[in-house]
Amino acid sequence: MTEKLRIAVLGASGYTGADLVRLLACHPYAEMVLLTANAHAGKPMGQVYPHLRSLKLPRLIKWEEADWSGVDAVFCGLPHGTTQEIVAQLPEGLKVIDLSADFRLTDLPTYAQWYGHEHRAPHLQPEAVYGLSELNREAVQRARLVACPGCYPTATLLALAPALSAGLIEPDDIIIDAKSGVTGAGRSVKENLMFCEVAEGLRPYGVGSHRHMPEIEQELGRAAGRTLAVNFTPHLVPMNRGELVTCYVRLAGGADADRLRTVLTERYEAEPFVEVLPAGELAATHMVRGSNRCVISVVKDRLPGRAIVISAIDNLVKGSSGQAIQNMNLMFGLPETLGLEQLPLFP
Amino acid sequence: MTEKLRIAVLGASGYTGADLVRLLACHPYAEMVLLTANAHAGKPMGQVYPHLRSLKLPRLIKWEEADWSGVDAVFCGLPHGTTQEIVAQLPEGLKVIDLSADFRLTDLPTYAQWYGHEHRAPHLQPEAVYGLSELNREAVQRARLVACPGCYPTATLLALAPALSAGLIEPDDIIIDAKSGVTGAGRSVKENLMFCEVAEGLRPYGVGSHRHMPEIEQELGRAAGRTLAVNFTPHLVPMNRGELVTCYVRLAGGADADRLRTVLTERYEAEPFVEVLPAGELAATHMVRGSNRCVISVVKDRLPGRAIVISAIDNLVKGSSGQAIQNMNLMFGLPETLGLEQLPLFP
Amino acid sequence: MTEKLRIAVLGASGYTGADLVRLLACHPYAEMVLLTANAHAGKPMGQVYPHLRSLKLPRLIKWEEADWSGVDAVFCGLPHGTTQEIVAQLPEGLKVIDLSADFRLTDLPTYAQWYGHEHRAPHLQPEAVYGLSELNREAVQRARLVACPGCYPTATLLALAPALSAGLIEPDDIIIDAKSGVTGAGRSVKENLMFCEVAEGLRPYGVGSHRHMPEIEQELGRAAGRTLAVNFTPHLVPMNRGELVTCYVRLAGGADADRLRTVLTERYEAEPFVEVLPAGELAATHMVRGSNRCVISVVKDRLPGRAIVISAIDNLVKGSSGQAIQNMNLMFGLPETLGLEQLPLFP
Amino acid sequence: MTEKLRIAVLGASGYTGADLVRLLACHPYAEMVLLTANAHAGKPMGQVYPHLRSLKLPRLIKWEEADWSGVDAVFCGLPHGTTQEIVAQLPEGLKVIDLSADFRLTDLPTYAQWYGHEHRAPHLQPEAVYGLSELNREAVQRARLVACPGCYPTATLLALAPALSAGLIEPDDIIIDAKSGVTGAGRSVKENLMFCEVAEGLRPYGVGSHRHMPEIEQELGRAAGRTLAVNFTPHLVPMNRGELVTCYVRLAGGADADRLRTVLTERYEAEPFVEVLPAGELAATHMVRGSNRCVISVVKDRLPGRAIVISAIDNLVKGSSGQAIQNMNLMFGLPETLGLEQLPLFP
Repeated sequence: MTEKLRIAVLGASGYTGADLVRLLACHPYAEMVLLTANAHAGKPMGQVYPHLRSLKLPRLIKWEEADWSGVDAVFCGLPHGTTQEIVAQLPEGLKVIDLSADFRLTDLPTYAQWYGHEHRAPHLQPEAVYGLSELNREAVQRARLVACPGCYPTATLLALAPALSAGLIEPDDIIIDAKSGVTGAGRSVKENLMFCEVAEGLRPYGVGSHRHMPEIEQELGRAAGRTLAVNFTPHLVPMNRGELVTCYVRLAGGADADRLRTVLTERYEAEPFVEVLPAGELAATHMVRGSNRCVISVVKDRLPGRAIVISAIDNLVKGSSGQAIQNMNLMFGLPETLGLEQLPLFP
Repeated sequence: MTEKLRIAVLGASGYTGADLVRLLACHPYAEMVLLTANAHAGKPMGQVYPHLRSLKLPRLIKWEEADWSGVDAVFCGLPHGTTQEIVAQLPEGLKVIDLSADFRLTDLPTYAQWYGHEHRAPHLQPEAVYGLSELNREAVQRARLVACPGCYPTATLLALAPALSAGLIEPDDIIIDAKSGVTGAGRSVKENLMFCEVAEGLRPYGVGSHRHMPEIEQELGRAAGRTLAVNFTPHLVPMNRGELVTCYVRLAGGADADRLRTVLTERYEAEPFVEVLPAGELAATHMVRGSNRCVISVVKDRLPGRAIVISAIDNLVKGSSGQAIQNMNLMFGLPETLGLEQLPLFP
Repeated sequence: MTEKLRIAVLGASGYTGADLVRLLACHPYAEMVLLTANAHAGKPMGQVYPHLRSLKLPRLIKWEEADWSGVDAVFCGLPHGTTQEIVAQLPEGLKVIDLSADFRLTDLPTYAQWYGHEHRAPHLQPEAVYGLSELNREAVQRARLVACPGCYPTATLLALAPALSAGLIEPDDIIIDAKSGVTGAGRSVKENLMFCEVAEGLRPYGVGSHRHMPEIEQELGRAAGRTLAVNFTPHLVPMNRGELVTCYVRLAGGADADRLRTVLTERYEAEPFVEVLPAGELAATHMVRGSNRCVISVVKDRLPGRAIVISAIDNLVKGSSGQAIQNMNLMFGLPETLGLEQLPLFP
Repeated sequence: MTEKLRIAVLGASGYTGADLVRLLACHPYAEMVLLTANAHAGKPMGQVYPHLRSLKLPRLIKWEEADWSGVDAVFCGLPHGTTQEIVAQLPEGLKVIDLSADFRLTDLPTYAQWYGHEHRAPHLQPEAVYGLSELNREAVQRARLVACPGCYPTATLLALAPALSAGLIEPDDIIIDAKSGVTGAGRSVKENLMFCEVAEGLRPYGVGSHRHMPEIEQELGRAAGRTLAVNFTPHLVPMNRGELVTCYVRLAGGADADRLRTVLTERYEAEPFVEVLPAGELAATHMVRGSNRCVISVVKDRLPGRAIVISAIDNLVKGSSGQAIQNMNLMFGLPETLGLEQLPLFP
């Protein structure tokens, strides 16, 4: 392949948009030809994100002003709700990698229940492929419209889905205690995300009501072969990036923690971005910061018949922009790791 | 009461020692007459902790050099193991408030199993009173030797013990996902506690092996009226102070989450330092930083028959030094809140 | 004195308002009878600041609804500009401790230049006393209207004013490199104060244009006995509280750094809240967090004839709410340290 | 060029070593064939730095065990003092990129004075080239032994050296207020670098005694064409990475701040890693985190005849490992930006 893909990024002024630009700028076969950010239209990207000012990039425009001719792929980093309306208006055949929640839920009533309105592009939902690259690779390769998973679902599904598929854990007793850095909330300006409200403290939020829950249940249910419900409790941690889910599960099928670890290790052995740690080593977000990697630990629980599965990602990379690029690579037949080779930044 | 209590603080150079000094210095009926710190013997306290340099305090000495005549109460902030040997040598009748783990476990084989050696002052164990002030007030009032609880047990027991006593939760399905600031590890100089190893990240630690576990099980078992085992999984959060436990419990006795909240609210209504939040408000460590308070939330779980109980404390205050002073107040018949009226520091 | 002062706090929902409430609640002779916060009128304070929810406090009202009868003192934590209009409408004779910048600048054209509008209560300016307690104690004691200094001026003036008065440093070569925690910017919701925009980074701001500059120049000029101009360059540090100014000065009058330290030490010897550190010890914000203290270091510069004076305060306490209470104590003939005995919180 | 350079990294277990490995692993023409870390000899690198565990790397060995045959270049990240002894024993002709201070000071008595011992490889000093790539490019290209600058000198010299060379600032009135993240102190385990000692605070350190001072003076003097002395005052900031120097200078040669900015802008126009910001934009460490970039602002001072030059780098990259790789590229005739294209990580 010698020509570069011509890429559009819609909603480039959010943190996921900025991380897309950061990563795409180093992708050998990607050229960003179109960046939209309606509130910042007219500005150069480097004014909205000074850390990107060294890049030569097209000026930010409104999405209504976009010229789609010659665009090969669209990354869509727009808010929930808006996304479906805009994606519905894109030229037919244009490949779309959506980072919003709009096309993640296959059941439209579930979407309406959790997002408060009827879906506005229901005809597109059936063709949308859930873009958890490792679990859905072949479908992604054939897809035109990929719905990238949320950050919490990514960390959780990589940890639990293969175990459920293999019948090694009980579907009806899954507790997911999740912790996220503050970028998970995006760049929207809210009092509770101000430095002084977050630093030097820890708080749970959205307990029992976080919108990533139905998505987790849908995909875990798919793995288990039947519907299920989980406990999912997120917490806000005073750090920029990083997400860690601590999953408390009941073992099934005669498995113990070691067996569970072995199965996961084999499942991900060939995966470039997922690593199951040996017994005794614990996943931490420091191991993945800034990278597209996921690390997973399986720990024996003191409670008989139970195990703890811990999974860590960078919420902006594997949990969002990095996985989106991984999906782009799959959709265009490129090596899956292209542009995603950056190692974690530590410290 | 007109005369001040004459106080000794053993192990004044640890973080709990320093916070004891910070709080005792503002206690109207306490006078610190003796401070020990063997590694820093000879120095003024203000050299070891410059934030305390404005205080007039006795110079740090080795504990072997202490003159106990005229001392009314001893706070013991020494390492595990050492404590029992030193407490055994203190003058008879001297009231001791111990912040170590040495006298917390009533079962001596359990102590030996978790701490790696036989107890060296087993004759003292029977008289030690477990000093969770709110749950054990009368025994503390009569005690000579109080074993103050660990920080995690304090947060956990305040959240769960009354519910177990009342038969509202199942004893055999308790999962405690705990998160702590870094002061919980003390001032010992270790690579994994360096700024750069902790900041901008989150990690679990001591999964299945944390020494606060047997203490939690002992006291929860006491509340339940029988032995039990729990899952207890701590995580290290990049903040100085604060501890939050998220407890996943199965309801019993026909209770729902609202009933559980009501029972806890009534239980703590008269308590000056514990507050159960109304439905819809979530406990956070920001609410308690620097103070002796504990805030508790009870949340309905989406999983039927389950609830989430969340409890937040400052690990150095209610989780250690503050509760120790609360116990001193009880032991000497002083108003329980003396010296502990400081409000949380936020931001 | 047996009766409590009846206190009003206007603008209680800002960080300075909240810290006023935190400190006043522990003041033995203060009773908060009136709290205003126009945007939050009708709410309990504990809803706006959950860390204060244990307090029994009057509900927040609009300032227009206030009943001033029986109020002894008003703390005014309102925005610049609004303050002067409201203070002008308060009952005559009511003692006012203003935390805004509205009455700090004695020269009205200077005010207009820096704040962009003519002063709206110029008749009040002459009676306003600049409330840097240590430097202006007698005037504060007699004052009805006290203009509390800004945080940067407080740290800077305590470090430099006595040296200028004594002719030990040159007035025309003063460089003040200032660093502040994020609470210095208040609770206003702005993108550049979001956690992710601040954490893990450092940035200068308002270089050459910060509004604390004319205030510093006015008061340093007063100490020097003539007008002067300074370089003042603030930086935003990823921490909640704390302010440190590093002042680069040229020595005068034959002084060296040791002489300068000696003079400052003697000047503050009897002061309860200001401490000049011995040679070799360096001021740090960790020494003052949460307290009304200021620590000052004087260091010999390698450049001949120069010295470095470093001063650290908690910007919300000595830099704002604490000093305001210190001034209240002075205005009402109370012991100056009442309600301000809290020691720094470290870590 | 088709063959990869065979690289040895001595002292791979420090933070600079780890960042070297992180960057070299993505360098298209570098292959790490030898990693030493005497204290960790025998371990895989991924055990010492779990974020690097996905890399295939040679196991850590003691440097005494190294086989130098076939090695093309050595990065030396060893402690000061040790370095000179080891470098002296390396095979002749081997290209060495040293990150320590051992070969930075050309004057041996100055070395002895600041480092407390006579230099142990004085014969090597004359051939050492000071490796500030932008200022010394041609010499680096021809060098066998490059002494990479310290982090503070890098940020300072990029900001000031061209101005001194052009006679635009006075050599005798330079004040450098420097602020650094904690990685600048390396991975050595010390109490004052523990999380709780650093977080939520700011402190100056090494005032008047920091070892980067003679290096700054040597190189600024070289630019000025005569000896000079500067004030250099570093501060420790609670962040991992990032360094910002705020330089207060007196203008010379009829220059004003705009002229100074223009000269710097032109000087660095063709440089891939250095950018002078337009008037009104302020350098911040957020703009460079994780990257090899340096951003510089020039600001008019309110004091007549003065200016402020602000420079920001990532201390581990442009301040250490990144610049070392930049020098390797120069020494081997590779494109200077190879392996260093990573953009800053923000947030």
